[in-house]
Amino acid sequence: MSSPTARLAAINIGGSTSASARGAPEPHLNNNNSLDSSLSSNIDQDADHAPRGDFGLIGLAVMGQNLILNAADHGFNVIAFNRTVSKVDHFLANEAKGKSIEGAHSIEEFVSKLKKPRRMMMLVMAGKPVDDFIETLLPFCEKGDIIIDGGNSHFPDTNRRTKYLAAKGIRFVGSGVSGGEEGARYGPSIMPGGNEEAWPYIKDIFQGISAKSDGEACCDWVGDEGAGHYVKMVHNGIEYGDMQLICEAYDIMKRGLGMQDKEIGDVLTKWNKGVLDSFLIEITRDIMYFNDDDDTPLLEKILDSAGQKGTGKWTAINALDLGMPVTLIAESVLARCLSSLKGERTRASKVLEYVGRTNKFEGDKQQFLDDLEQALYASKIISYAQGFMLMQEAAKEYKWKLNKPSIALMWRGGCIIRSVFLKDITAAYRAEPDLENLLFNDFFKKAIHTAQPGWRDVVAKAALLGIPTPAFSTALSWFDGYRTKDLPANLLQAQRDYFGAHTFKIKPEHASEKYPEGKDIHVNWTGRGGNVSASTYQA
Amino acid sequence: MSSPTARLAAINIGGSTSASARGAPEPHLNNNNSLDSSLSSNIDQDADHAPRGDFGLIGLAVMGQNLILNAADHGFNVIAFNRTVSKVDHFLANEAKGKSIEGAHSIEEFVSKLKKPRRMMMLVMAGKPVDDFIETLLPFCEKGDIIIDGGNSHFPDTNRRTKYLAAKGIRFVGSGVSGGEEGARYGPSIMPGGNEEAWPYIKDIFQGISAKSDGEACCDWVGDEGAGHYVKMVHNGIEYGDMQLICEAYDIMKRGLGMQDKEIGDVLTKWNKGVLDSFLIEITRDIMYFNDDDDTPLLEKILDSAGQKGTGKWTAINALDLGMPVTLIAESVLARCLSSLKGERTRASKVLEYVGRTNKFEGDKQQFLDDLEQALYASKIISYAQGFMLMQEAAKEYKWKLNKPSIALMWRGGCIIRSVFLKDITAAYRAEPDLENLLFNDFFKKAIHTAQPGWRDVVAKAALLGIPTPAFSTALSWFDGYRTKDLPANLLQAQRDYFGAHTFKIKPEHASEKYPEGKDIHVNWTGRGGNVSASTYQA
Repeated sequence: MSSPTARLAAINIGGSTSASARGAPEPHLNNNNSLDSSLSSNIDQDADHAPRGDFGLIGLAVMGQNLILNAADHGFNVIAFNRTVSKVDHFLANEAKGKSIEGAHSIEEFVSKLKKPRRMMMLVMAGKPVDDFIETLLPFCEKGDIIIDGGNSHFPDTNRRTKYLAAKGIRFVGSGVSGGEEGARYGPSIMPGGNEEAWPYIKDIFQGISAKSDGEACCDWVGDEGAGHYVKMVHNGIEYGDMQLICEAYDIMKRGLGMQDKEIGDVLTKWNKGVLDSFLIEITRDIMYFNDDDDTPLLEKILDSAGQKGTGKWTAINALDLGMPVTLIAESVLARCLSSLKGERTRASKVLEYVGRTNKFEGDKQQFLDDLEQALYASKIISYAQGFMLMQEAAKEYKWKLNKPSIALMWRGGCIIRSVFLKDITAAYRAEPDLENLLFNDFFKKAIHTAQPGWRDVVAKAALLGIPTPAFSTALSWFDGYRTKDLPANLLQAQRDYFGAHTFKIKPEHASEKYPEGKDIHVNWTGRGGNVSASTYQA
Repeated sequence: MSSPTARLAAINIGGSTSASARGAPEPHLNNNNSLDSSLSSNIDQDADHAPRGDFGLIGLAVMGQNLILNAADHGFNVIAFNRTVSKVDHFLANEAKGKSIEGAHSIEEFVSKLKKPRRMMMLVMAGKPVDDFIETLLPFCEKGDIIIDGGNSHFPDTNRRTKYLAAKGIRFVGSGVSGGEEGARYGPSIMPGGNEEAWPYIKDIFQGISAKSDGEACCDWVGDEGAGHYVKMVHNGIEYGDMQLICEAYDIMKRGLGMQDKEIGDVLTKWNKGVLDSFLIEITRDIMYFNDDDDTPLLEKILDSAGQKGTGKWTAINALDLGMPVTLIAESVLARCLSSLKGERTRASKVLEYVGRTNKFEGDKQQFLDDLEQALYASKIISYAQGFMLMQEAAKEYKWKLNKPSIALMWRGGCIIRSVFLKDITAAYRAEPDLENLLFNDFFKKAIHTAQPGWRDVVAKAALLGIPTPAFSTALSWFDGYRTKDLPANLLQAQRDYFGAHTFKIKPEHASEKYPEGKDIHVNWTGRGGNVSASTYQA
C-alpha cells in the first residue's frame, strides 16, 4: 500500500475537478457506509479532491486498452490500472495520450479516483486472478460499489462471486465482452449479468460503448448471477462452430477443388454479399488475400494446430451435463483437439492412405460452390438452433430469465459472430418469443429446405473425396435426426434391457394391457435370465 | 444394531464351521488391530464361531445377485446383505437356495461372518450410497480389511476413497464389472484398481469368477486409485459407441433399404460370423427375431428415447478435459440426448421435410450391405483407437501405469463389448506394448484400408438419403483428419490472430528470420489495429 503522502499526490494528478459530461447517477444505497471502518478514513474525498473517474478499468492487455479508449471516446473519464504498473505509464504516454484517461499506480489510488458508486471493471485472466483482484479491491470498497468482471470467467464462478459480494453489499457483474481488438475499440457486444441492482448504474457506459445495430445497442441486461457469462460462453461455442465450418469450406475448396487462396478469397467476397454476410467471412476473405513478403499467402505458412482450453470446451461440457445435443460445437472443439496432435498426424499421414472409389472431384464446379455456400448456411442454422436450445434449457435448469430476442440482438453487432443472419434470428424471436426451436420459424424452415440438396451433396462428396467435414456432417446428421419421429434408439433400449435388464417404455401407439404406456418394462429376451431388473447398475 | 444374542444366533446360521475349498490367504497385517477399540469386543470370533464367509456382497439388485451365485458356483462361501433386508430372505429362499450363500440382516452381522482380512464388495448405486455404506462398514472393520466398490463410480470419487481409507488402514478397491445379468452370473469382465495391497487377497476370487478368454481370465489389476473405474468408464463409453453404430446400421437397413427386422436379423447372423462377431451383434440379431404375441417384432413397439446420464457422458467430458478427440463416444452420447427429445422431434417431423436430389436407394443391395458391414467395422476401429488414445493420455495425466494389452484382454470376454475384434487388439498391443496408435498396427492399418471404399459410400449415401449417421460420419471425418498432415486449422489460427491478436506459430518448413519457428507471432492483418497481443482474453 502506498503512503498517505504518495496517495494524496496521486489523487491530485490531473488537477481539474470538473465533472465529466456523463457523471455516475446517484446511488440508492448510502455510500458513506464503508465496508471496513478502519479503512473509511484512508480514502477521504473532500470537495477539493473530488474524484473525477466515471469508470475504472483493471488490466491493460489488448481488450482492456481498447475498451478504455472506447469509453474515453464516449465522454467518460476512465481510470486505468495494471498489476505491472509500467504498462500504465506506457499506455498513458502513448495510446491514451490526450484522452480523458488517467492512470493509477496502486489499487488504492485506482479506487480513490472513482466517483461513487464506483464502477470498476476487471479484464484479467479468468480464474484465480479475478478472485485475487476482488480481494485486493474489497478493503477499499464501500457498500453499493460495483465490480465488473469483463473476462471470460466460467459461469459457476460468477454465480459464486455474485452471491459472495452481495453479502458484503457490493454489486457484482459478470459480463461477456466480444469483438476482439477492433470490437473493444469501436463497439463490442456486451452481455452483462449478475446483481441486477448494478444495471441502472452501468447501463449508460455499457450501452454507450457497445456496438449499435440499426440504432439499437448490442448490450442489454442478460439475467441473474452467471447468466451474462453463460451467454458469452455459448456465444464463444458458436464462434468455435462458425470458424470450424469456414475451415471445412476452405479445405474443400483447397484440397477438393484444387483452388488457390486468391480464388477462395473471390468466392468469399461473393458469399459476403449473400446469406453468409458476416464478420468471420469478411476477415477470412482478407486472410485469403494477405500475402507474405514473397507474394505467397501467409495463411499457408501458419501452423495448423489450434488450442481449445476455454469457453468452447465449457459449452460442450455444459451441453453434456444438461443432456442437450449440441453436436456442432462439440465437434468443433474436438476438431481443435485433433488439430493439436500435429506430430501424431504427421506420422499417421505417412502410413494411412486414402482409399476410395472416387479420388477426384467431378461435376459442375460453380454448382458445387453454390452447394457449399448452402451447406455452410444450413450448418450455421443448425448450430444456432442448437445453441439457443442449450440456453433455453440452461434458463430452465438454473432458473434464469433469458430474453432470447435480446440475446440475438446483442450478437448482431460488435461481436465475432456478428452477421446479417443474426438479424433474421432477432426477427424470428421478436415475432415469437416462445418459439420452441429456431427451425420452427418460417424463415429458417424455408432456408433449410432450400439448402438441403446442396448440403447433402457437399457432405456426400467430401466423404467420397476424403476431406474431413466433422461440422458439416454432424449438422446434417443432427437435422436428419431432429426431423425424425422414430429414431433407432428403440434398438438401443432393447439392447440395454437384453443385457442389463435396464427396462424400456412402449411407444404410446403400441401400448397394450401387457405393455402399458409409461411403465418400465423388462422382457426376458433369452428365456435364461432372471426377472430381476437393474436398479443399481446403469450402463 | 442387532442385539448380541441375535448376532450370535445369526452367526450360527448354517451350522458347519468347515473352511471353504478356497480360504482367504493369510494377511500380512495384524488383523487384531481393530480400528476402533470400543468395537473390537463387539465381534468376538472364538473358535466355535469362526466365520465362514470368504466373500461378502452388499446390494442384491440384478448384478449383485448374479455375482453372488457366480462366486458360490466357484466354491466360495458368500455372505449376502441388502439394505432392504426382506430382499435377503427372498434371495436365500429362492435363487440362493442350496448354495454356499448365507444372509446377514445387519452390517454388523455381515462383517462378523467374514474371514479376515474381510473381502467385502458393494454393488450399490454410485454416489452417496457408496460413501454411506463405507461409513456404515467402518466401525466394524479392522486394519487390513478390504472394501470393494463394484458399481459404476466416477473415478475421481474412487481416487478420493482410496486415499481416505488407506489412511485408516483399510484397502479400498474400485472395480469395474461388466457383462450385465448374464456376465455377472457366468463370468463378467472385471477391472479392479485402487490400493494394490488388496490385489493378492482378491485375485483368487476375482479371476475365479471372471470370464475366461482362451483360458486367460478377463480380469487383471488395472492400476492405482480410480484406474479400474476409469477403464470401466471408457469401456462403457465404447459400449455407447458400439451400440450407436449398430443402431445406425439398423436404421439404414430399415429406412434406407426398406428391410424388415427378420431380414435384418439374417444379415446380422451373417455378420456375426465375420469381423463383427461380437456379443452386441449377437443380441441384436436375437432382438430382430423376437416377436410380440401378435407375431410382429417387439422392437418396433419400443420407445426410441434413451437416457445418457452416466459413464458415457463422463467419458465424453473427460475427453474434452484432456483435450483428446474422442468424437465417436461424444456423438453417441449426444445421439441419446437427441433421442430423448421425443416430443420435440415428433413436432419437428411435422414441419421439417426431407429435400434432396435422391430420395430412394439405387444400386446393388448386396454390395451396399457388404459396404455397411465394412463401415461398421471401420467405425469400430476408429472408436477403439480413440478410446485407447484417451486411456493413454489419462495414464500420463493421472500418473497411472495402465497395461494396454491387459485392458484389451479384460474386454475380450465377459463384458458387453466382448468380441473377436478385441482379440486382434490384444494381439496388436502384445506385439507392440508401446504402439502409438492402434491404426499404426499392420493388421488394423490393412483392415481400415480395405474398409474405406465401402465406408465412404455408406456415409455418402446416408447423407443423400436423409438417414442420420452421426457415428459413422464422425468416424470417417476423424479418420480423414487423423491421416492429414495439413489440416485447415491454419485458417483458424489466422482468424484468431486477426480478430483477437491471439498469435500463431509458423510451420517449421516455412520458418524464416521474420517468422521464427516456435515463436508466438502476431500480424497486423488490417493495418488498423495496435501491436498489443492478447494475454488475458482467450476466445
